[in-house]
Amino acid sequence: MGINSNRVDHYSGSGHANPTDPVTITVSGETMTSLELHNVCLPPQKSTLQKLRHRLAEVFFPDDPLHGFKNQSGLRKLVLALQFFFPIFEWAPNYSFTLLRSDIVSGLTIASLAIPQGISYAKLANLPPIIGLYSSFVPPLIYSVLGSSKHLAVGPVSIASLVMGTMLNEVVPYTQDPSLYLKLAFTATFFAGVFQATLGLLRLGFVIDFLSKATLVGFMAGAAVIVSLQQLKGLLGIVHFTSKMQIIPVLSSTIQHKNEWSWQTIVMGFCFLAFLLTTRHIGMRKPKLFWVSAAAPLASVILSTLLVTLFRSKLHDIATIGRLQKGLNPPSSNMLYFHGEFLGVAIKTGIITGILSLTEGIAVGRTFAALNDYQVDGNKEMIAIGFMNMAGSCSSCYVTTGSFSRSAVNANAGAKTVVSNIIMASTVLITLLFLMPLFHYTPNLILAAIIITAVIGLIDYESTIRLWKVDKLDFVACLSSFFGVLFISVPIGLAIAVGVSVFKILLHVTRPNTSVLGNIPGTQIYQNVNRYREARRVPSFVILGVEAPIYFANSTYIQERILRWIREEEEWLAANNGSSLKCVIIDMTAVTGIDTSGLAMVKELKKMLEKRSLQLVLANPGGSVMEKLHQSNILETFGLEGVYMMVDEAVADISSSWKAQP
Amino acid sequence: MGINSNRVDHYSGSGHANPTDPVTITVSGETMTSLELHNVCLPPQKSTLQKLRHRLAEVFFPDDPLHGFKNQSGLRKLVLALQFFFPIFEWAPNYSFTLLRSDIVSGLTIASLAIPQGISYAKLANLPPIIGLYSSFVPPLIYSVLGSSKHLAVGPVSIASLVMGTMLNEVVPYTQDPSLYLKLAFTATFFAGVFQATLGLLRLGFVIDFLSKATLVGFMAGAAVIVSLQQLKGLLGIVHFTSKMQIIPVLSSTIQHKNEWSWQTIVMGFCFLAFLLTTRHIGMRKPKLFWVSAAAPLASVILSTLLVTLFRSKLHDIATIGRLQKGLNPPSSNMLYFHGEFLGVAIKTGIITGILSLTEGIAVGRTFAALNDYQVDGNKEMIAIGFMNMAGSCSSCYVTTGSFSRSAVNANAGAKTVVSNIIMASTVLITLLFLMPLFHYTPNLILAAIIITAVIGLIDYESTIRLWKVDKLDFVACLSSFFGVLFISVPIGLAIAVGVSVFKILLHVTRPNTSVLGNIPGTQIYQNVNRYREARRVPSFVILGVEAPIYFANSTYIQERILRWIREEEEWLAANNGSSLKCVIIDMTAVTGIDTSGLAMVKELKKMLEKRSLQLVLANPGGSVMEKLHQSNILETFGLEGVYMMVDEAVADISSSWKAQP
Repeated sequence: MGINSNRVDHYSGSGHANPTDPVTITVSGETMTSLELHNVCLPPQKSTLQKLRHRLAEVFFPDDPLHGFKNQSGLRKLVLALQFFFPIFEWAPNYSFTLLRSDIVSGLTIASLAIPQGISYAKLANLPPIIGLYSSFVPPLIYSVLGSSKHLAVGPVSIASLVMGTMLNEVVPYTQDPSLYLKLAFTATFFAGVFQATLGLLRLGFVIDFLSKATLVGFMAGAAVIVSLQQLKGLLGIVHFTSKMQIIPVLSSTIQHKNEWSWQTIVMGFCFLAFLLTTRHIGMRKPKLFWVSAAAPLASVILSTLLVTLFRSKLHDIATIGRLQKGLNPPSSNMLYFHGEFLGVAIKTGIITGILSLTEGIAVGRTFAALNDYQVDGNKEMIAIGFMNMAGSCSSCYVTTGSFSRSAVNANAGAKTVVSNIIMASTVLITLLFLMPLFHYTPNLILAAIIITAVIGLIDYESTIRLWKVDKLDFVACLSSFFGVLFISVPIGLAIAVGVSVFKILLHVTRPNTSVLGNIPGTQIYQNVNRYREARRVPSFVILGVEAPIYFANSTYIQERILRWIREEEEWLAANNGSSLKCVIIDMTAVTGIDTSGLAMVKELKKMLEKRSLQLVLANPGGSVMEKLHQSNILETFGLEGVYMMVDEAVADISSSWKAQP
Repeated sequence: MGINSNRVDHYSGSGHANPTDPVTITVSGETMTSLELHNVCLPPQKSTLQKLRHRLAEVFFPDDPLHGFKNQSGLRKLVLALQFFFPIFEWAPNYSFTLLRSDIVSGLTIASLAIPQGISYAKLANLPPIIGLYSSFVPPLIYSVLGSSKHLAVGPVSIASLVMGTMLNEVVPYTQDPSLYLKLAFTATFFAGVFQATLGLLRLGFVIDFLSKATLVGFMAGAAVIVSLQQLKGLLGIVHFTSKMQIIPVLSSTIQHKNEWSWQTIVMGFCFLAFLLTTRHIGMRKPKLFWVSAAAPLASVILSTLLVTLFRSKLHDIATIGRLQKGLNPPSSNMLYFHGEFLGVAIKTGIITGILSLTEGIAVGRTFAALNDYQVDGNKEMIAIGFMNMAGSCSSCYVTTGSFSRSAVNANAGAKTVVSNIIMASTVLITLLFLMPLFHYTPNLILAAIIITAVIGLIDYESTIRLWKVDKLDFVACLSSFFGVLFISVPIGLAIAVGVSVFKILLHVTRPNTSVLGNIPGTQIYQNVNRYREARRVPSFVILGVEAPIYFANSTYIQERILRWIREEEEWLAANNGSSLKCVIIDMTAVTGIDTSGLAMVKELKKMLEKRSLQLVLANPGGSVMEKLHQSNILETFGLEGVYMMVDEAVADISSSWKAQP
């Protein structure tokens, strides 16, 4: 946007740029009496409005999403706009039979996963199992029109299901008032969609960046542990189980209801769990055999249902899903709930599940886009996911997004476009219309085993070890979200983790690095003397690098630290050769911003050093820093001899001026 | 701390450092086939424990407060420790008669201010006037032993009084239960002291840095407006006045009780207000006449008391202070309140008044220290102020700190040491013992006039204009704290302003600057081509500067922005000379940190660019960034030809390697 003004003289002139033109520089304090200095430039003059526009463009449109529209005819712009808002118009014209064949294979594969997972995840959210199937039908169709990822497999996911189940069940237990619970679930889904679409439309996508990867690793592991333990209900056949979500009540509830354990359920449950975990392991070890793990859940459902149906009289202890209604999604817009005492809960649940499902959906989309060398626009994806949830809330669906595990299977099975989602939805449609009675005797234990197999992959201990190795504070953020989710609650665990992450940024700004710089012989470069053994300090100078913007939060610290460097240098000089310090150069290269507190600090520091007859010089202040120094009239107090473009020129010029006036 | 290892070869070797040794460098793409490259160093190896120690030392002891203790004998260390904890031992041995003479003059001057202000500010906090005098007696004595500022004049201040008055009065109006109110005030003072001393002892002084100057300007102006409007009660003689603190109830209460306005009070009040404002103006215009404004409050008190006493029968409308008890501070430790329903309010009030009074005290101490060329240790000052408030809470004092206006008078009157506080306290002592009956007929209106004169100086509209000119976001922080205090409440106004300030830091990190760099001819330096017109782009390269640490909050943004720069460069090349881009160099000089999300981004970016056959090169990654690249094994994927110490070497080396293998 801003660089076009410079395009004209893009490469003009000589310099190192032109390798056929050798340049010889002679650098020495003695021969450089007529040193050619470079002025430090102010950035190009702009009005407040222009600056605001530029800043807003950088904040909200970093990817310049409309660049394709530049210099196009009116009709072409219309087509581009249509393609921009409905990516289906982009790929549909070039769709071919070859692509369709791949998409059918992958669509059927993910459908075989989506049906058992949909039923299971709905149970995780304390919803009737059929809601999970409804949610695997409408949202994928909407996404296939609006979405820009080719590999995302849309449907209910474990984390969002768990969080919705927990947050709503705390206020209105499903068993007490199923109809109110259902209303709140659809309302929360509606608000999740509104929130997601709003973030996308306002281009506030960066909000989800605040859930750092470290935070998510901890959060997902904590959620996976809780979810797995909760499945003990199904695997052990317990009837009266706690509805709480912390680890302690869940475990104590398991032990308390020992009398309800059913050995038939336990044996069958753990056998199928072992089978599913084994196939999962095979699928992970040998990527070519991914279909083993993809087909296992449906195979288990069929096998277990057959077993229970055939030996019904003997296996009466085993709880089953029961009768499921045939037919398509009923409309549910009349069930949305916009008033009354539980509205707040619905909105809160919507925002939290909305942000979590968005994070998962965007991350999955980006991952597979990067693997297959295309780009997805985060903000457009948010709009797609948001509209899909709003539409879902009006057609008996709860929160959906792109699932990581199913998208991976989708990509492995050779999905080429979003049509695989349409194939999947069609398969679910057939199931809903004709196959529902078959699930009557599907045992609950198999759903528990499927959930455990799905969430166990969320426990990413390898990443945790890597975090410990690379970044201790990220590790702390990870652990705190893990234990927060496990022992306190999902929203508080998340809040703690976000707090730790923000604190980390603030700590970095509040206590920045400062270092003494020395010259690397044979170059014009000055580097940290602690790190580069060859870097040489310059006598009579102390050259300090400050590695952060100077803000209210660190200006006092930076001042104290600079004064301490000077004091230490003076003490060393006094103890050794007895020569004196004359000039302090601050390398401002990494000082990327300054505020009014920082400006006041610079001014005060200059005064303090002047009283001690030390010269303060700034080297290479950045554009915005120069501008602010200028606006606050501090630049004038420095004058021409107080600001240099490079440390090297400052050292050469100042030492030669000392020679001139001894 | 860390640099001693390098001290040995402090200045050894040649280089620019030694001006008698000229160095000639020949730089050219052709002659530099055997280019001597500089390795990018990792920082010195340190264990996790050593790193943690170093980091903690930087966070908590930036000023290395114990450096004076190094290499000293045992006895000397004891003396130093005594001086460290009780600064009185530092200056007392050298105290002289000349110093005492100055301190007596300044001590008497500030006493003449402290007595009327003490009474007035106590009224502001809804406390009995005598508490204000008690608070001007004990705390200054404690401070003179523990404090390290020479010019701080200690006593009650307007902001802390206002905030305490508001916060406590909302819960327990003084008129309803004076004894409980008094208990809560002392308890809040106690907790303020504990909080302040704890911050100092734990060296968490940087907490107060989060109240940026911009925030404080807005906050103080808002508080000053509220306080001044509240004084309409005294100036108009209203009896039934609202106890609320927002601007709307205060103004409507003034108009609602119009029938209570007393013309005698109004005439006398506004005359004295005009007199005080005039003397204040004179004192500000001619610093030599500072004594005019310093003496005016006491003179007004004496004059108005005389008038009311003499014309008592005619001026019966005018409300007066009434009987004040003679005698020293009664002990109040038995009134501290450590249980029951109001404990939370007392703690909250204590923390907020504590942090505000600390901010004022430290800022005043630093200002006068800088003016007089000595340093105060912020953390030690916090301990002093904390202990002074704890002691105060046990001797019938409420929150005190260093007052800006009285400290300025103190410095102007020639104070040399903290003894001026002792002189002031002695004068207050005499007043408390003998002169209390004289205040019986002092009219309340004069207290209102004194408060208005004192707080009007807090409205610093010039700073606000400067904020607008220099930093728009600081201006927004200032305005939001101003209006927050005015229309909502003091704690919420403060919270909003701190929120805006923190948001500003996060915004800077979340949306950092990136720029295209070009070579400045004749140097090894690369600068922003937008800012430096002489900077030349290098053909086949795009050199990008990233101006922030790469964190979870900005890694997606930076990736998108870098890809856009590359796309724009490629588009420009395609439209112009048709040559192709081969290499992307990222100048990491200002990338002062990286976390696991940032590392993942760098890895992914490298992969993405490789697929497009573009080489990605990092130039000058900082110490901690190098370390993390190394630990996460990303450095290996770059290899030796992917990381350079300077952009210049990267350009030269890579273009020569292209020549070698065409």
